[in-house]
Amino acid sequence: MSYFRNALLYPRSVALIGASADISRLTARPLKFMRDHGFQGEIFPVNVSHDTVGGLKAYKSVAEIPAQIDHAYILLNADPALEAVEACAAIGVPVVTVLADGFAESGGAGIDRQKRLIEIAENSEIKVIGPNSTGVVEAASGFSCTTNAAFGREGLPSGNFLVLSQRGSVIGAMLSRSAAVGLGFKAYVSVGNEACLGVGEIGKELVSDPEIDGFVLFLETIRRPDEVKEFAASAHAAGKPLIAYLVGKSDAGQSLAASHTGAMTGGGRAIRAFLDGLGIYQVDNFEALAELANTLTLRERLKTRPEKATVVTTTGGGGGMIYDLLGMRDVALTGMSQHSSKALQEIGLSIKPGALVDVTLAGAKYETMKSVVSTLINDPTSGLVVAVIGSSAQFNPELAVNPIVDAVKESGGNAAPVVAVPVPDAAESIRMFNESGIPAFRTAESAAECIGVLLSPAPRYSPRQVDDTALSGVRRILRDCVQSRLLETEAGAVFRELSIKAPPSMQIAEDEAVPEPIPFEGPYVVKVLSRGIPHKSDVGGVVIGLHDVKSVAKAVDKMRASLGETQPEGSIIGYLIQQQASSLGEAIIGFYRDPIVGPLITVGMGGVSTEIYEDIAVRPAPVSVETAMEMVAQVRGFELFRGFRNKPKGDLLALARAVSWISDLAAVPRVQEAEINPMLIGAEGCGAVMADALVRLEGAK
Amino acid sequence: MSYFRNALLYPRSVALIGASADISRLTARPLKFMRDHGFQGEIFPVNVSHDTVGGLKAYKSVAEIPAQIDHAYILLNADPALEAVEACAAIGVPVVTVLADGFAESGGAGIDRQKRLIEIAENSEIKVIGPNSTGVVEAASGFSCTTNAAFGREGLPSGNFLVLSQRGSVIGAMLSRSAAVGLGFKAYVSVGNEACLGVGEIGKELVSDPEIDGFVLFLETIRRPDEVKEFAASAHAAGKPLIAYLVGKSDAGQSLAASHTGAMTGGGRAIRAFLDGLGIYQVDNFEALAELANTLTLRERLKTRPEKATVVTTTGGGGGMIYDLLGMRDVALTGMSQHSSKALQEIGLSIKPGALVDVTLAGAKYETMKSVVSTLINDPTSGLVVAVIGSSAQFNPELAVNPIVDAVKESGGNAAPVVAVPVPDAAESIRMFNESGIPAFRTAESAAECIGVLLSPAPRYSPRQVDDTALSGVRRILRDCVQSRLLETEAGAVFRELSIKAPPSMQIAEDEAVPEPIPFEGPYVVKVLSRGIPHKSDVGGVVIGLHDVKSVAKAVDKMRASLGETQPEGSIIGYLIQQQASSLGEAIIGFYRDPIVGPLITVGMGGVSTEIYEDIAVRPAPVSVETAMEMVAQVRGFELFRGFRNKPKGDLLALARAVSWISDLAAVPRVQEAEINPMLIGAEGCGAVMADALVRLEGAK
Repeated sequence: MSYFRNALLYPRSVALIGASADISRLTARPLKFMRDHGFQGEIFPVNVSHDTVGGLKAYKSVAEIPAQIDHAYILLNADPALEAVEACAAIGVPVVTVLADGFAESGGAGIDRQKRLIEIAENSEIKVIGPNSTGVVEAASGFSCTTNAAFGREGLPSGNFLVLSQRGSVIGAMLSRSAAVGLGFKAYVSVGNEACLGVGEIGKELVSDPEIDGFVLFLETIRRPDEVKEFAASAHAAGKPLIAYLVGKSDAGQSLAASHTGAMTGGGRAIRAFLDGLGIYQVDNFEALAELANTLTLRERLKTRPEKATVVTTTGGGGGMIYDLLGMRDVALTGMSQHSSKALQEIGLSIKPGALVDVTLAGAKYETMKSVVSTLINDPTSGLVVAVIGSSAQFNPELAVNPIVDAVKESGGNAAPVVAVPVPDAAESIRMFNESGIPAFRTAESAAECIGVLLSPAPRYSPRQVDDTALSGVRRILRDCVQSRLLETEAGAVFRELSIKAPPSMQIAEDEAVPEPIPFEGPYVVKVLSRGIPHKSDVGGVVIGLHDVKSVAKAVDKMRASLGETQPEGSIIGYLIQQQASSLGEAIIGFYRDPIVGPLITVGMGGVSTEIYEDIAVRPAPVSVETAMEMVAQVRGFELFRGFRNKPKGDLLALARAVSWISDLAAVPRVQEAEINPMLIGAEGCGAVMADALVRLEGAK
Repeated sequence: MSYFRNALLYPRSVALIGASADISRLTARPLKFMRDHGFQGEIFPVNVSHDTVGGLKAYKSVAEIPAQIDHAYILLNADPALEAVEACAAIGVPVVTVLADGFAESGGAGIDRQKRLIEIAENSEIKVIGPNSTGVVEAASGFSCTTNAAFGREGLPSGNFLVLSQRGSVIGAMLSRSAAVGLGFKAYVSVGNEACLGVGEIGKELVSDPEIDGFVLFLETIRRPDEVKEFAASAHAAGKPLIAYLVGKSDAGQSLAASHTGAMTGGGRAIRAFLDGLGIYQVDNFEALAELANTLTLRERLKTRPEKATVVTTTGGGGGMIYDLLGMRDVALTGMSQHSSKALQEIGLSIKPGALVDVTLAGAKYETMKSVVSTLINDPTSGLVVAVIGSSAQFNPELAVNPIVDAVKESGGNAAPVVAVPVPDAAESIRMFNESGIPAFRTAESAAECIGVLLSPAPRYSPRQVDDTALSGVRRILRDCVQSRLLETEAGAVFRELSIKAPPSMQIAEDEAVPEPIPFEGPYVVKVLSRGIPHKSDVGGVVIGLHDVKSVAKAVDKMRASLGETQPEGSIIGYLIQQQASSLGEAIIGFYRDPIVGPLITVGMGGVSTEIYEDIAVRPAPVSVETAMEMVAQVRGFELFRGFRNKPKGDLLALARAVSWISDLAAVPRVQEAEINPMLIGAEGCGAVMADALVRLEGAK
């Protein structure tokens, strides 16, 4: 474990296989960058046509190198790269990173190449990063083993978060944008095609690194979701946040990502739900990746403080703008406390009371700002202090930036944390803030996003342990099912095994009469049972609102007559007579296996609410009842069951329980899809009952 | 007109009343800034205690100045400022700008001060800007008559859009952020409290300035909405876009704005709807104010081209990110045409086909980039070309920035327009692009916002001319109404005058029998008519689904019995018997007068759709049928009437007509509120019928 980590991030010896002797070439960059940034390990270029590369002795092959190699970066094209991987495998290089493209992402022969690459890795001890990887960088040690031009900059700022990126070109932009505001990342791994090791596998191995406080992920798809889940679970257990930026939120972006990754077209929505379900922060502002990582360093200090913000400003307009943006993210906002206000009055400072602490332009003076900020951060009722600075941030940092920095510096470790938002263009002040432990932001929007996240409950992820005993009944039922689509009675049996309540019902055979009396009370529903009719309602195969035996019998007769004509002989198995349960309203619960992220569970209101307003909660399955309650809380339409306009409350806990139980089907691989639509919601405490059930197994539809 | 404009923006002589001789004081800034920026007009400081200010002779009062003053900036505190305004009025200074606070925004005595200020202005020829104004700036002439510190910068970039800001501190941030990327604004007017002249009045006066191509508004409220409407109408007529940033989108922000402006708490939502209805662009990214103004310069050239974008990139990851963000804004995206692809192949460049034109890192060379961009912009099928540049934008502009600039420079005026998005931090490259007429952006999000707006249909605003003849009938009915809340029959009559279809109905008196037969077919609805019952349904005053005379009579008898007991004697006027119309579904149309923005018209589905999903379209009333159709198109729930799942289509044109007709009530000031809920939507071509009608007049409820 630690062996892999050391070879990946802290190698003592590096082979650059295919490093060019021509300094203008891309493949000459890793050597140059490592030297520029003072990498202290040994570097061994491998080059078949030159004896020296960059003044170092070059070897004809990795096998000739007279030292143990911790990390090899293969800079050759696809086929020679494969040969080099084999050579590394032969001598047991622990980590091999591959730059070449022309693998799975390019289709055709590339797919075979990728298979071969995986084979080599599986038959040896080596761990392969890539292909299509622009390399690995560990900032503090100067191990900038990358072809990405951005790492040619002077100085390599470091930080505490590690970047895992599915796009190699983007790590440069992340370095560039964070460095511009005095931030940095600890390390960068361009995971490329993730042929062998991906975000999940690498992340899992690095979670325990005490120098890593969290991870930043630049994603366009999910490969091997189970590994990502394990990574997320261990990161949460270690208290290390994961922050992701997903490319492919739109349909257009997702199909572009699919064309690039060679993955199936999947829904960006499913990936978002998957990441959400794993408790991974997702940012909308690209720049917020670095800024949020930096902001989250305040989480610990906020734990003992109220989850609210106080905006203090020298610019009423700019302060108002931030206040408003925070309001849009439902951040709790509060003005100065009576206590603080009094303390300031005692030293001769009278701040106008209000929701915003506006010291005004006149207050943009060192002593005033310092007193106000000191008072606020030493006030035990303060949550987060948000300092919004006007033009002085750009032209006179001594008036409004320095006093904030000094106030924070002189405060004890128990003081309320501070973030800063300069309204004008003020990169210097932002750097000064960031370097003083006061997270600062380049745009109002990114500031609002980061502050909003900081002041929201931290996302959680505790994987559910499925109770397998409940599933043995399901498996027993499925043993007898050979067709893909189960009959409604079979589907109902599956759900009953999962403890879902069903209304009283009975089945009659195709030629059987309706019994008199029906052994339970009405009103009744009659449904045809046939494997040949996927949409019963469309062909008149469902009749509702039948109040007595006579009308049930009439409905069955009518179905027999009409369906008997249109359906093939023998395809109708019988008729289901169900009690039509009354309810306060309906919900829909769905389980399915997404081709990219795997099993998902959904819950919504059904109908217009789901189809037009897309008001549906989605999570990776299985989910605990607690998570299912969060899902239910997320569906806006369920407002109707929460005492909306004094209507009686619905049993949403029963609904959440059902969601959790059904989500356990994730552990029954044969089940491809399962749905209850509608699920009838009773009054609070009265449970929920399934009305229509559907289960589809793997295999032909 | 032009006189005011000249005095406001191009004064030949300026009085600085209260200019300090102490260079460190705020009130010394305007003089210093104007000198620094080379203002050529005459400047006359007025200072009671110094003979010279900044080396210029100072006068004891404005009356002593031996020249005609075009523009006076009063830098004194509230009460002395009022005196100075009077002095300016006495000698007829055309434009007087007032810095002081302590007016309406501070309540109490401030309100009286503001009244006095308005009085002085009304009794003279002077035009007053402010109070609470940080001044007026015209960049090109160096007329930087402001106390805002940001204008102390070196050089004052100019542009073609004029800024009107309700917050004086923000004009500095706008200057700073735009200047950082090589952009600028033509002029800035800090409108302050808008006591006399506001955004509307000033805008109207400046629309005809040929040097102004459009306006940027920083708003937190709307004062005198009719003036703003007229401004918007004339700006649209002149083809000059208005771009707004609204502070107060959240409830928190809106109540903060209300506390600052002294305005009533209003809904940010109403203001947004008002601005939307006036065809004013609203940006979400503060920085996009300058960037959108710059981007819109491409509008003209895009007119002859398809409304779609082609993303060309050196960074697959960054390009994918922009592609995705554009996809989220529903921008139509397209790859390279066969034609372009062939043309490039002919010169030896083969670009992988795909939705994204990815020249890859290897293609980040001057000749390659130039050929690709030239080919794309000279392709008649290209819309907007979006160049997304990776790390070369930061470190090697000669590889990927210069070739784009050169390709555009060498292309004819008919070439497709280009915008550029550097993915890393690259202010220099952004400046270079902007200065070459290639709008460039600092963040991916702002880029997506501006490009999305550019490629959407330009918003329009053509004020509706109300047909007053239709309203004379309404006025006639209202003449007899003395109570605030109209009876349903009266409200129905009002709507019928507006050409709204009503179902057949009849009224019987309190003690009258139900006639036999009822003179129209059933089913029937019975409603009680009483001024004392605002919510009929809640007290059993509405019964639906009655199929014959007998059941109607029974329902009336039952109401008589139950309401007779609970309602005061004589309060029940009678009963309304209506045909219960069948329909495909329901809508709700509402008219009301917002305390801030004035008359508004709304349309939605009603019920859960409106109350939980807030799926409702709002516009300033009156609206044309065309605008009403846009509103209807905006309501997602009406999907149900557009052939959703093969259901029959509903008559949405009839609904839109009703919306437009009802919106004409804006011209009947007595009507405070009018609502049809529900409006029953018939099948396409079959119209829409009102079911329940409500009208409330001004006065006690």
